[in-house]
Amino acid sequence: MKDKKRPLILVTNDDGITAKGIRTLVDIASKLGDVVVVAPDKPQSAMGHAITINDTLYVKEFKMHDYDHKEYTTSGTPVDCVKMASHEILERKPDLCVSGINHGSNSAINVIYSGTMSAAMEAGIEGIPAIGFSLCDYDADADFEPARPYVENIIKQVLENGMSKGVILNVNIPKATAEELKGVKICRQANAYWEEEFDKRTNPYGKDYYWLTGKFVNDDKGEDTDEWALEHNYISIVPTQFDLTAHHYIKELNTWEFGN
Amino acid sequence: MKDKKRPLILVTNDDGITAKGIRTLVDIASKLGDVVVVAPDKPQSAMGHAITINDTLYVKEFKMHDYDHKEYTTSGTPVDCVKMASHEILERKPDLCVSGINHGSNSAINVIYSGTMSAAMEAGIEGIPAIGFSLCDYDADADFEPARPYVENIIKQVLENGMSKGVILNVNIPKATAEELKGVKICRQANAYWEEEFDKRTNPYGKDYYWLTGKFVNDDKGEDTDEWALEHNYISIVPTQFDLTAHHYIKELNTWEFGN
Repeated sequence: MKDKKRPLILVTNDDGITAKGIRTLVDIASKLGDVVVVAPDKPQSAMGHAITINDTLYVKEFKMHDYDHKEYTTSGTPVDCVKMASHEILERKPDLCVSGINHGSNSAINVIYSGTMSAAMEAGIEGIPAIGFSLCDYDADADFEPARPYVENIIKQVLENGMSKGVILNVNIPKATAEELKGVKICRQANAYWEEEFDKRTNPYGKDYYWLTGKFVNDDKGEDTDEWALEHNYISIVPTQFDLTAHHYIKELNTWEFGN
Repeated sequence: MKDKKRPLILVTNDDGITAKGIRTLVDIASKLGDVVVVAPDKPQSAMGHAITINDTLYVKEFKMHDYDHKEYTTSGTPVDCVKMASHEILERKPDLCVSGINHGSNSAINVIYSGTMSAAMEAGIEGIPAIGFSLCDYDADADFEPARPYVENIIKQVLENGMSKGVILNVNIPKATAEELKGVKICRQANAYWEEEFDKRTNPYGKDYYWLTGKFVNDDKGEDTDEWALEHNYISIVPTQFDLTAHHYIKELNTWEFGN
């Protein structure tokens, strides 16, 4: 018999259901609530807030592991997974959605390209408290062990305190040992960006093609940013929102000549 | 000889390079500056801020029309198009990026799913003043004529006034005749959302699949929102930003027990 007071936790990610990061998150979440996993059947990194509207969606039960809880894959994006979970798979609205743990950083401007954070954002839009977790290590076999106690405590804090409507947590964990990790810092998104470089090649049939590459540039010297925290071995938490209005700029625009 | 003072305007969209909406925007932009078009070779609606990192990108010159300016298609997303334009195709940084005119609304929460607005956002991230235009009419043969003078004036205003770093304009135009259109309103993003419904079907081989559908719900009664403006036949302009930090929530989070 399951304890009725245990929260229902939806777990998703963008690296696909078999990734090491989501397995770690499932382990941690299972200690704190009743877990259901709905995740993409293949990697969906950098999908941003994409949704599937011109194609069909498939859902399949996923039975690779010997768990008490249910797991499902969908053929869609991370955002599709959250939509499918809330409206088709789960019998009731989850108390929390956790996304990740992503293999790679979603700090600074990366939040906007991130499938991990878009899944969490989608849950937030639907009124479900949500957290996106990312480890700053792209390795498929990255070491998630040092992050465990922090991830567990952050989930506990959200379950205990609840979340303000419209706010989602973006948690990034530096690549560091348990001894090196210094704790948690609440931060703002650093004003950093990618300087793109396209790697131009020629295919065997003589046609040019490109790979998108680039280097991350952080000109933001603030000590209250996620980049600063990560560089100094702190776990960064940025409260993140989906009201994109630049409220401070409304007054300025009202002085422009729109011919009304 | 081209006038050196004419601004360089990058035109893109998410409906693909042949859409009626981008053709209208190219016409308008050509009056105001030197135009280069870099747009997806196929429709890319609802792609959000997706980028192509696990696949190759192709660029092709597009010569369907008898223009003075150059046009290119890419095999990527709207965001890829802006990245390719800035870093590979254009010889100098454009003075403005205009995206659209989208066939369909990008008001309220739609901004977050929108390929049109993500392209504009990407330009904004790269420090290029940017505007996304959308007409609230999904028809492939939608009537863009009533919108023309407004689109032209909004582009002029941005070229004259410049834009604050980190702010992008999200312009939505109601489906209305020239007589019905009442002018422009500066707005905030309405707090509205989609209530998803999945249309479940069975394919000829007996396998279930889904189509994502839903209805748009606006519980936001404010008269300063984009939804209010559009309902009342005003063109809405929402200043939009890519700093997603919920700054108001940082103080609250600092009272939580993160065990530091």
